[in-house]
Amino acid sequence: MTITLYDLAGAEDDRRFSPFCWRIKMALAHKSLSVEEVPWRFTEKDVIGFTDQGRVPVIVDHANNDKAVWDSWAIAEYLDATYPDKPLFPTAAGKPMARFLKSWAETTLHPGVVKQCLVDILNHLHEKDKEYFRSSREKIFGMALEDVVAPADENIAVFRASLTPMRKALAVSEFLGGDAPAFVDHIAFGPFAWARAISTRQLLETDDPIYAWRERMLDQYDGFARRSPGYET
Amino acid sequence: MTITLYDLAGAEDDRRFSPFCWRIKMALAHKSLSVEEVPWRFTEKDVIGFTDQGRVPVIVDHANNDKAVWDSWAIAEYLDATYPDKPLFPTAAGKPMARFLKSWAETTLHPGVVKQCLVDILNHLHEKDKEYFRSSREKIFGMALEDVVAPADENIAVFRASLTPMRKALAVSEFLGGDAPAFVDHIAFGPFAWARAISTRQLLETDDPIYAWRERMLDQYDGFARRSPGYET
Repeated sequence: MTITLYDLAGAEDDRRFSPFCWRIKMALAHKSLSVEEVPWRFTEKDVIGFTDQGRVPVIVDHANNDKAVWDSWAIAEYLDATYPDKPLFPTAAGKPMARFLKSWAETTLHPGVVKQCLVDILNHLHEKDKEYFRSSREKIFGMALEDVVAPADENIAVFRASLTPMRKALAVSEFLGGDAPAFVDHIAFGPFAWARAISTRQLLETDDPIYAWRERMLDQYDGFARRSPGYET
Repeated sequence: MTITLYDLAGAEDDRRFSPFCWRIKMALAHKSLSVEEVPWRFTEKDVIGFTDQGRVPVIVDHANNDKAVWDSWAIAEYLDATYPDKPLFPTAAGKPMARFLKSWAETTLHPGVVKQCLVDILNHLHEKDKEYFRSSREKIFGMALEDVVAPADENIAVFRASLTPMRKALAVSEFLGGDAPAFVDHIAFGPFAWARAISTRQLLETDDPIYAWRERMLDQYDGFARRSPGYET
């Protein structure tokens, strides 16, 4: 085992649902690195206390003096610098658009999934995380989690419409990164892997090019993501 | 002169305000090709009748048997295939994200500019285009053009917030294409060049990384875009 990854988990150890951790899970699989995943809960700040920040993903690279790296973008850059084979950023010129995609995912894709899956997330959390999750998220939304997800038909319609740029790209390409997946695909796949782990909602219509891409991403790296416990949607 | 470009113009011949034409004006400047720009108005469908469609940009390449090409994406691909020096798409792997950016621009950037500049556009149109423009656009919005732009403070706030992904990319890079501009920059610049030609509105705050990028784009290619008549904003 080369790298330890602290990965957000639910009540069940093997149900993983952080879109940010999924970026790195896929990136590590992309590079065929040997990984030990450590399940981690929101309230276990002490476990990653050595990073002086309270969030995952965190990696510890045992092949490089137990170097700790956190923040998904920083981890991806670290991995490409340290293990240049099978690059996550195939060209330096592509990095600004990867940064664009990252911000688009966080301002469009993630909130769209949240508005559909908040209660599903709550239902899959470890008991010790539930109060933290409900109170912190209800403060953000200014309403009960159940009320956020209540307009389900409207939320799904807004979500699907918001995916147009990604849909247009995937209508003419197998992956956002071109003929093969790159970190842009890992970023965009994060929220779908997250939703799959905890929700039975059908986020995508089956004739959507994004649905076909999601299937390809589940199959990548010898079916790495598909083997992770989740719901078939 | 190698290429003729039919370019949307207003009452004044030299005031050019199609974001789609601006993509190609910049792409042709990028490749240092010799160009004759022909001013064109919305109602002059017959002038480009040889294309069997009614929109610009249209190019005619006199160095290649007067080949006519239309649709900005198709023109960019044609230019890279025919004049491979100084590529608009530096790598094939970057094309899906360029397609992503194109769709994002058309669903976010263009509508955001339209909601601020509709009346400014109308005021700069050739007399023969005004009725066509007002009736076709009021049908789309279901209200008078003046009512679309009336909530000016709200429109500008929504517009600036919508630019977050572009802002994040340009906070860490000189251009969306990396160290040098590429077609992704020409696409994103289109609506800013359009607004500059016809509107005195200050779309961007001067401390916005997008503002600095827009200045760089105006300076590119020996100040090609800056020499085009417009308002300083």
